Amino acid sequence: MKKVAVVGASGYTGVELLRLLAGHSLAEVVAVTSRQYEGVPISQVFPSLGGFYDLICEPLNVASIAARADVVFTALPHKSAMEVIPDFLNAGCKVVDLSADYRLRDPRVYEEWYQTHTSPELIAEAAYGLPELYRSQIVKARLVANPGCYPTSIALGLTPLLEGQLIACDSIIIDSKSGTTGAGRGLKEASLYCEVNEGFKAYGIASHRHTPEIEQTLSQLAGEPVRVSFTPHLLPVDRGILSTIYASLVRDCSTLELLDIFRKRYAEEPFVRVLPLGQLPNIVNVRGTNLCDIGLVSDPRTGRVIVVSVIDNLCKGAAGQAVQNFNLICGIDERAGLSAAAIFP
Amino acid sequence: MKKVAVVGASGYTGVELLRLLAGHSLAEVVAVTSRQYEGVPISQVFPSLGGFYDLICEPLNVASIAARADVVFTALPHKSAMEVIPDFLNAGCKVVDLSADYRLRDPRVYEEWYQTHTSPELIAEAAYGLPELYRSQIVKARLVANPGCYPTSIALGLTPLLEGQLIACDSIIIDSKSGTTGAGRGLKEASLYCEVNEGFKAYGIASHRHTPEIEQTLSQLAGEPVRVSFTPHLLPVDRGILSTIYASLVRDCSTLELLDIFRKRYAEEPFVRVLPLGQLPNIVNVRGTNLCDIGLVSDPRTGRVIVVSVIDNLCKGAAGQAVQNFNLICGIDERAGLSAAAIFP
Amino acid sequence: MKKVAVVGASGYTGVELLRLLAGHSLAEVVAVTSRQYEGVPISQVFPSLGGFYDLICEPLNVASIAARADVVFTALPHKSAMEVIPDFLNAGCKVVDLSADYRLRDPRVYEEWYQTHTSPELIAEAAYGLPELYRSQIVKARLVANPGCYPTSIALGLTPLLEGQLIACDSIIIDSKSGTTGAGRGLKEASLYCEVNEGFKAYGIASHRHTPEIEQTLSQLAGEPVRVSFTPHLLPVDRGILSTIYASLVRDCSTLELLDIFRKRYAEEPFVRVLPLGQLPNIVNVRGTNLCDIGLVSDPRTGRVIVVSVIDNLCKGAAGQAVQNFNLICGIDERAGLSAAAIFP
Amino acid sequence: MKKVAVVGASGYTGVELLRLLAGHSLAEVVAVTSRQYEGVPISQVFPSLGGFYDLICEPLNVASIAARADVVFTALPHKSAMEVIPDFLNAGCKVVDLSADYRLRDPRVYEEWYQTHTSPELIAEAAYGLPELYRSQIVKARLVANPGCYPTSIALGLTPLLEGQLIACDSIIIDSKSGTTGAGRGLKEASLYCEVNEGFKAYGIASHRHTPEIEQTLSQLAGEPVRVSFTPHLLPVDRGILSTIYASLVRDCSTLELLDIFRKRYAEEPFVRVLPLGQLPNIVNVRGTNLCDIGLVSDPRTGRVIVVSVIDNLCKGAAGQAVQNFNLICGIDERAGLSAAAIFP
Repeated sequence: MKKVAVVGASGYTGVELLRLLAGHSLAEVVAVTSRQYEGVPISQVFPSLGGFYDLICEPLNVASIAARADVVFTALPHKSAMEVIPDFLNAGCKVVDLSADYRLRDPRVYEEWYQTHTSPELIAEAAYGLPELYRSQIVKARLVANPGCYPTSIALGLTPLLEGQLIACDSIIIDSKSGTTGAGRGLKEASLYCEVNEGFKAYGIASHRHTPEIEQTLSQLAGEPVRVSFTPHLLPVDRGILSTIYASLVRDCSTLELLDIFRKRYAEEPFVRVLPLGQLPNIVNVRGTNLCDIGLVSDPRTGRVIVVSVIDNLCKGAAGQAVQNFNLICGIDERAGLSAAAIFP
Repeated sequence: MKKVAVVGASGYTGVELLRLLAGHSLAEVVAVTSRQYEGVPISQVFPSLGGFYDLICEPLNVASIAARADVVFTALPHKSAMEVIPDFLNAGCKVVDLSADYRLRDPRVYEEWYQTHTSPELIAEAAYGLPELYRSQIVKARLVANPGCYPTSIALGLTPLLEGQLIACDSIIIDSKSGTTGAGRGLKEASLYCEVNEGFKAYGIASHRHTPEIEQTLSQLAGEPVRVSFTPHLLPVDRGILSTIYASLVRDCSTLELLDIFRKRYAEEPFVRVLPLGQLPNIVNVRGTNLCDIGLVSDPRTGRVIVVSVIDNLCKGAAGQAVQNFNLICGIDERAGLSAAAIFP
Repeated sequence: MKKVAVVGASGYTGVELLRLLAGHSLAEVVAVTSRQYEGVPISQVFPSLGGFYDLICEPLNVASIAARADVVFTALPHKSAMEVIPDFLNAGCKVVDLSADYRLRDPRVYEEWYQTHTSPELIAEAAYGLPELYRSQIVKARLVANPGCYPTSIALGLTPLLEGQLIACDSIIIDSKSGTTGAGRGLKEASLYCEVNEGFKAYGIASHRHTPEIEQTLSQLAGEPVRVSFTPHLLPVDRGILSTIYASLVRDCSTLELLDIFRKRYAEEPFVRVLPLGQLPNIVNVRGTNLCDIGLVSDPRTGRVIVVSVIDNLCKGAAGQAVQNFNLICGIDERAGLSAAAIFP
Repeated sequence: MKKVAVVGASGYTGVELLRLLAGHSLAEVVAVTSRQYEGVPISQVFPSLGGFYDLICEPLNVASIAARADVVFTALPHKSAMEVIPDFLNAGCKVVDLSADYRLRDPRVYEEWYQTHTSPELIAEAAYGLPELYRSQIVKARLVANPGCYPTSIALGLTPLLEGQLIACDSIIIDSKSGTTGAGRGLKEASLYCEVNEGFKAYGIASHRHTPEIEQTLSQLAGEPVRVSFTPHLLPVDRGILSTIYASLVRDCSTLELLDIFRKRYAEEPFVRVLPLGQLPNIVNVRGTNLCDIGLVSDPRTGRVIVVSVIDNLCKGAAGQAVQNFNLICGIDERAGLSAAAIFP
């Protein structure tokens, strides 16, 4: 039984971690922190957790938490995360960080898109927590940089194509759509129910901070620099990311042939489902799960392949993948706590 | 390990049973039936189940299924259920029936609201599957009549008041609101997305078929005939029932006092959460779970108590309670397969 | 052509007023105020208004606005409203006030539920802006207290029953459900998309501030003090209020008979539609309109009548009724600017 | 005053036509047809129309309708439309056809994607009803082929780029998302509330029937054959289409420069709003209106322009544009009946 803490528990990623950990037989949550809700029972912050936890939200005191926890999940905003992670590591904890702070391998890129990095030396040490690509590094890590939600859906949708050198690297266009939990629990007019409901919009065109993270992984897969067009959109649903990915095939490849390549690549992966010919994924089918569903079509008319990849942004895109990484760094079955089927409808 | 069959698997109650049973370590689903999807893999009917089941939908052949299953869940419409249940019982299966066919103790009442009953002799034998009230009968039953969704939410909201003779029996008014899965998966114009979305309406005022079932339980609790006003409404959400219940108190009783009575009544119940003073339930907090959340307010100005009771209509209101009953008749821990926290948001 | 100002234009009531006034051929909006968006074009605050208005949000300067406007719509929070309304009146403007400040005839009741009233002398002068009941007073008024959304739906649902002395005054129970625009545009965690979506809850049980306003009108209609149980709920839709109203009939009355009484009462009312026997109202059918749809059922089993009344909370429940009152005080056809059919779906 | 008939009135396009025509001072609806609802008042089929129409749904009898109507709106499925349109024309009516039957100029292309065309001679005569491109032909037409919803949003988003020869014609990728009214009112499991709500999916990848219509218009604009990748998706909202369009610029062009080109192209168009720099369109802002909102970003990193174009699929994408075409063929102000602002929220 591993003792864990959830730092920054009162956001949507926090409650999702707590939900998953409540059903994890080898993890025990010993502490939850929240500045906003200090002193409040977590089951009052999130009544859905009533009866599952007796914990009270506490302020973030590294020493106090490190004394109790083996592994810390940091569900803090970027910058806040790197302010405490070095201390947790020094105190002997392992850390799964859900912020952006250790995802980008090049500190200059990080600083271009975010701010000055205060512990660049840890970047090299951190494992990028996409198990389907970096499992061997994750199992040895004491710090895992849990990937962003969009980058996860996109990397899994493109890996077999790039590894197989099947597409032109300068042809990749990614049109992603995310549920509203992706915008977080902060108070913004644009996140109000009546501003989101019945609406749909693009945002951050050609400027979203996940772009360098996406390109970093794709470039590594391609063995050459990859630049993509990436457009995120906001969906009027709670959860789910669907990425529609367009790329030009460098040789004729039928849908069946490509599906076969995908199926082989992910044959041993417990959380990737490659859909049969003629089926396309829907975000509802992975809701609340750590699964990634992938469908695709090869279009001979245009010479392009269109891949559709879906995940739950809070789960495989955040908390679920964090638990998967937790399992890996603890030597636990990778699927522990992550085996439930999606609720439908 | 109990072998079970889900008869009528392609509706919303069917898929919910399959979701819950996929996570139940002491149940193995050996057969699923569907007339509409005969020959189709259940994971194609419900892609959310992909990777969880290899079963193919088969036609409903009692002998064939009884040869493989210990317990049968019948998720059929009323009338269709009683056409096969006697045969399943004769073949030695236990049955948890999710239809209305064996819920009403008086066949004449059944026939007034539905149609001729073809196995009235089994009505007396059937246990009414509301464990919080009838656990001792359920554990001995070979046929469990799983309660309706509205009646479940209402009975749990009124039990402590009626047992304690705290309210006037002719004063009960119940205003219930149900998510759209309650209307089933049948093709009706009124169930189309664009007919439900952004809408809200009452239906079946003073004439809903759950009325006699509600009054049967309440009368039993009160020890005298109870007549209620019951108004169901259709909510533009997938899941959830919220019942707002009004009754005149026969003596002064503060909110705190009443909450205390509720808390004592349900102290040993694993699936009922009585909320603290000042908190009111929300359907999201029980979504996908077998939980019933209850809040209440005593209003000295009018002498009435207002109870708010919420469940997930597909779970505690159908499939979850069916699994709870399955556990009881099999001598399994009542909570098996039903311990997950609600997904929020 | 009347010149009008919308004070407090950046909330949901404000944008609804501007939408309606954009289609009103006898009103010209000459000023909009907003503290939060001072200096910002209103068409940037609300892109839906792009091309309809060139106005810039200005600070609230009574003298400046009074110099330009004949009639002022105050869409401010209570308290803020009464801080400026006396000055607008003194400056010669007529005012339609959408706040609660002048709705309650008894200042002591106001002060019990809100705060000290700073212009109690104006309460007596103000007309309560429910034209179906108080038209003759409204046409003469220079200050109209536009009714609350819940009270409007409830008063229209009960008027024929109380005027006809058909129900027991101590038996009235009102179960209301409102869309989320009713919670306003302020930044509250509870108003975030992911907190509201797929949820449903009661709030303010036995303590909602609309209770005295409801009882004031009903008592006037009944000619005796009326006390009601009133429970509001929050619906996961943008717009719409549905009130389900229960009352005990004092004599036998069939549904048909009651419908006939309602139809006669509202025969000359342009905005009330009494639905035919067997039809029940749905909030979608009045969305964006000033209409109130009413359906009802008489239940001989319980001796109760159940009335269902629906309006659009932002329109007949706020801005639409305000325009109706504006028309009345200006001697314009009551329907001007309010004649569009609801958008369905 | 023109007398008009709506043929196929009981679908979503039908009710939208009736809503718009109810507010059109120069059109009078004299007949509505519906096979499914023959004999039923249209205000019972659509209670939102209660009080606006006294018409009863009649069977489709061309002679009878032609005797009463000057202009006929055919809101029938393809194939059914061309079965009656020649007769309406012969009877002297003008026709605005909302089906696909006369949109494709080349009957062979039509027959490849649909079925045998039974009146190919009328194709040449029909005007393609996109006023922003083909106004001069529409005003003279007696048969207008009202464009598809996706093609409308896409043509308006690409016209200035193709007319200006600013993009590479083989680089166009269109990712479109449509509200669920686009799937029609027919009874399909996939259109049920619980199948759509909280979901999101792509469909018809590389095979949607709107593809040839899209390419026909774009090819005409480009002066050379254009092939596009077009992926439609289903949004869990009632109304709205958002098309995200990617294309490679053939020369450097800043966002500002491109916006200026768009603004000039559409300066005289009453229904196209080009948004200011930094603003991106949202479907809610055009809901219920005939407007098309366009935003764009030029991305120097990839050399691509990303255009976002939104319309209401039922309005500018169907019924609204049909009324616009009706106005044109009748010599009425193009904006008649189409001047309302969008309802927000």
